[in-house]
Amino acid sequence: MSAAMNVQDIPSLKIRPEDNVSVILRPGGLGAGAALDEGIILREDVPFGHKVALEDIPAGGAIIRYGVTIGIADQALPRGSWVNEHRLHLPPAPALADLPPPAPQPAAGPPLEGCTFEGYRNADGSVGTRNLLAISTSVQCVAGVVDQLVRRVEAELLPRYPNVDGVVALNHAYGCGVAINAPDAVIPIRTLQNLALNPNFGGEVMVVSLGCEKLRPEWLLPEGDGNATMLALQDPALTGFAAMTDALMEQAEEHLERLNRRRRETCPASDLVVGVQCGGSDAFSGVTANPVIGAAADLIVRAGGSIMFSEVTEVRDAVHLLSPRCADDEVWQALAREMAWYDAYLERGGADRSANTTPGNKAGGLSGIVEKSLGSVAKSGSSPLVDVIAPGERLRRKGLTFAATPAGDFVCGTLQLASGMNLHIFSTGRGTPYNLSVAPTLKVATNSDLARRWHDLMDFDAGRVVTEGATIEALGMELFRLILDSASGRTATAADRLGISNDLVLFNPAPVT
Amino acid sequence: MSAAMNVQDIPSLKIRPEDNVSVILRPGGLGAGAALDEGIILREDVPFGHKVALEDIPAGGAIIRYGVTIGIADQALPRGSWVNEHRLHLPPAPALADLPPPAPQPAAGPPLEGCTFEGYRNADGSVGTRNLLAISTSVQCVAGVVDQLVRRVEAELLPRYPNVDGVVALNHAYGCGVAINAPDAVIPIRTLQNLALNPNFGGEVMVVSLGCEKLRPEWLLPEGDGNATMLALQDPALTGFAAMTDALMEQAEEHLERLNRRRRETCPASDLVVGVQCGGSDAFSGVTANPVIGAAADLIVRAGGSIMFSEVTEVRDAVHLLSPRCADDEVWQALAREMAWYDAYLERGGADRSANTTPGNKAGGLSGIVEKSLGSVAKSGSSPLVDVIAPGERLRRKGLTFAATPAGDFVCGTLQLASGMNLHIFSTGRGTPYNLSVAPTLKVATNSDLARRWHDLMDFDAGRVVTEGATIEALGMELFRLILDSASGRTATAADRLGISNDLVLFNPAPVT
Repeated sequence: MSAAMNVQDIPSLKIRPEDNVSVILRPGGLGAGAALDEGIILREDVPFGHKVALEDIPAGGAIIRYGVTIGIADQALPRGSWVNEHRLHLPPAPALADLPPPAPQPAAGPPLEGCTFEGYRNADGSVGTRNLLAISTSVQCVAGVVDQLVRRVEAELLPRYPNVDGVVALNHAYGCGVAINAPDAVIPIRTLQNLALNPNFGGEVMVVSLGCEKLRPEWLLPEGDGNATMLALQDPALTGFAAMTDALMEQAEEHLERLNRRRRETCPASDLVVGVQCGGSDAFSGVTANPVIGAAADLIVRAGGSIMFSEVTEVRDAVHLLSPRCADDEVWQALAREMAWYDAYLERGGADRSANTTPGNKAGGLSGIVEKSLGSVAKSGSSPLVDVIAPGERLRRKGLTFAATPAGDFVCGTLQLASGMNLHIFSTGRGTPYNLSVAPTLKVATNSDLARRWHDLMDFDAGRVVTEGATIEALGMELFRLILDSASGRTATAADRLGISNDLVLFNPAPVT
Repeated sequence: MSAAMNVQDIPSLKIRPEDNVSVILRPGGLGAGAALDEGIILREDVPFGHKVALEDIPAGGAIIRYGVTIGIADQALPRGSWVNEHRLHLPPAPALADLPPPAPQPAAGPPLEGCTFEGYRNADGSVGTRNLLAISTSVQCVAGVVDQLVRRVEAELLPRYPNVDGVVALNHAYGCGVAINAPDAVIPIRTLQNLALNPNFGGEVMVVSLGCEKLRPEWLLPEGDGNATMLALQDPALTGFAAMTDALMEQAEEHLERLNRRRRETCPASDLVVGVQCGGSDAFSGVTANPVIGAAADLIVRAGGSIMFSEVTEVRDAVHLLSPRCADDEVWQALAREMAWYDAYLERGGADRSANTTPGNKAGGLSGIVEKSLGSVAKSGSSPLVDVIAPGERLRRKGLTFAATPAGDFVCGTLQLASGMNLHIFSTGRGTPYNLSVAPTLKVATNSDLARRWHDLMDFDAGRVVTEGATIEALGMELFRLILDSASGRTATAADRLGISNDLVLFNPAPVT
């Protein structure tokens, strides 16, 4: 993956003809006096990934990248100036009242036939990419007991059930803290309900509860599921800790016996449910990794599969570019509704979408949330938007869905799992060891420098768009093939090989008591 | 601890002369037609722990327990009726504008001299009850790496540093999700800052960061601490995962070498910082466990030590009983201020303090938050309230402090650890395997039935007040001795013997992006 830097002679990159800034491509940046292709001489040092003014931008003038105003200059920025977050302010977010309506979109391409992967087919028609025993919890009080149970299952039971890939605890921080009747508490509750139904758990629902919690454990049981089990530690029949864990081990074994009988079978790529996300973004996210992910997303949609993209605060400023892609008025209204809900949620807390960008984003050349958003939505590819779902809702349609979630990495990943994700694609420019244990998580580097330094933590180098002149389309196809391989269990992800993964994090916009 | 039920002949308990309800003590409850001591005949079956009307209460009449109105009858409740949450509504919370002012309080007793425990004295004057290596994290992205680091430290390093009790990861769900500039984000930030300073970590601060996060890792470093270490996984000098973990193992070893040189020494009980909390409460919480904890708290205050009690929503309805105990006007105002902050926080989320009570509380006989609060504040004992601190602030004074926190168990425990707690007391009636690994956590059962069933999960049976007629004072002294033993590392807690503990949970009232 450590590609040779053979296109370092391109000093900077302009995306659209109407842009008045370009981004420095030269590793290490360029010094004052250096000349760009456009005949522009840098007036000062400009770091790698940062922007240069291609024309004289007056104070109050628009700074245009991706053909869109990403900021308003706070000072005059003569040709060759460094354009950074200290020299501009954000334009207002697009008004939700007059978003462009749905408009006919060119198809992303003809249907893609014959693409398959090896998956675990479930009774409800969904397909797992892993064969895991999940242990749901209704309250954090039981987490210590469940953690110990997981260790015992791994040591004592799993060796006897070799077709089961592992056991995961769906621990979380809620159950009694959450104000269960507050309007927004519906979000963590349905997230927990739907998490247990993730296709990678084979329809086996095992719930461990305490007994006195506000989040009633029976809410976590699918209706009429004769195989589901539930145990309350406060059950008066359980005397002492050994009785609790023995009863839980017995229940776990029931589930493992059924899971162990499952085998992978050839499934069409239309059974893929891929969630895309980015974290630790830089100025290349929107040029390399996210467009490559978008190209792979288009291939999955053409193969009849499902793509979820998310992260409301990274879509908010690009929503006027998405709204014409809505398949119908209902989707268009749902898109505006989710944006409005989030605007209000942030406002209640004294924040707005500008709270999204990180110091790392800015050091990486992103001057604000508008620029970040324009790069972020590239992950969605070019397919029509067939649905918009609220945080933690289950996916309803094949094709491209906007699953409204916060942009915080683990909150977003957890919500996508609850929506039914069976494979996860994550792009990063600054680098993160992010991993979920529930579904294969492929990490795509936006630049080859990161792919080289983090050679054992990254799965895919999209920086080759810059360093090797690879096309978005070619890398999109390569990523698509890696997705099919990973979904089939043929290729372990980088983080899985290293044995690192992160806990799930529930999104709870309700207060705690 | 499994005490014989030798006072089962007391059918019900009335707390104060002015009460018009009593609580059924007979295990299994009492049936219609049964007679109480007061000559009252039950009109219907009443479960164990539930309330009976001792006189005819008209619709709209006050239901009085602990001498306080805990509810307003929704229907006429003739003598002998079952008084439960479906037959009453809550009175309004005490108005904060006219709380009773500070008033001279009788002393809890003369100073208690000569009580000591064996602790680890720190350079800042605080004393640890454990000798732990803590690994702070600035963002959840690094948690998977830190979890693996903990396993390596345990396996490869700890055997060579036998005086170190263990290694704990201060993982959490924030860093980038949190809207870092939102007004309320100060709470999770200072909680993380202060957690690293907990006395049980010996002043050794080790921070693992990613590099691009909004919560800057340097905020977690105490100023001018030459021993603190910080490592960013994105450090360009680190190539690959092995380089990261090797560098972290090296830093861990630096800290372990210093921690390993520490030895326990005899310290006065005035160095104890005990946080008290309850969870899974029942109608006995306010009769047995919490008054026993209050008696132990008074002994600690008399010995010059520090007590924190918390849980705003369980204090709100009893705040008029606490305000006269404030040491001065400043404390009195701070108490009202913290209550008002929480009222507003809940209101923003469409909830109020009534969201606190759980189905388990109600099944256990608690008819609402007023009754629960009156039982809850008993944990504070009778000492004057010398200070009120906001969530996650460090303790400033010895004596009794109200540390304002949510009542959610792990959120409260985490905030008390951030405030400097070196020992934790937790009362429960329904039962919870709650445990924190940072400080010894003693669990006090409110009833002997729980203590018997959960014999290996409970540390102390306060139900003996009922089952053996033990006095609050005697059990308070017994608990005080157990505290000194546990703080000295002589007695392992029940949950520690079983090897179960829960993760920390940050309180984040700010929105996430």
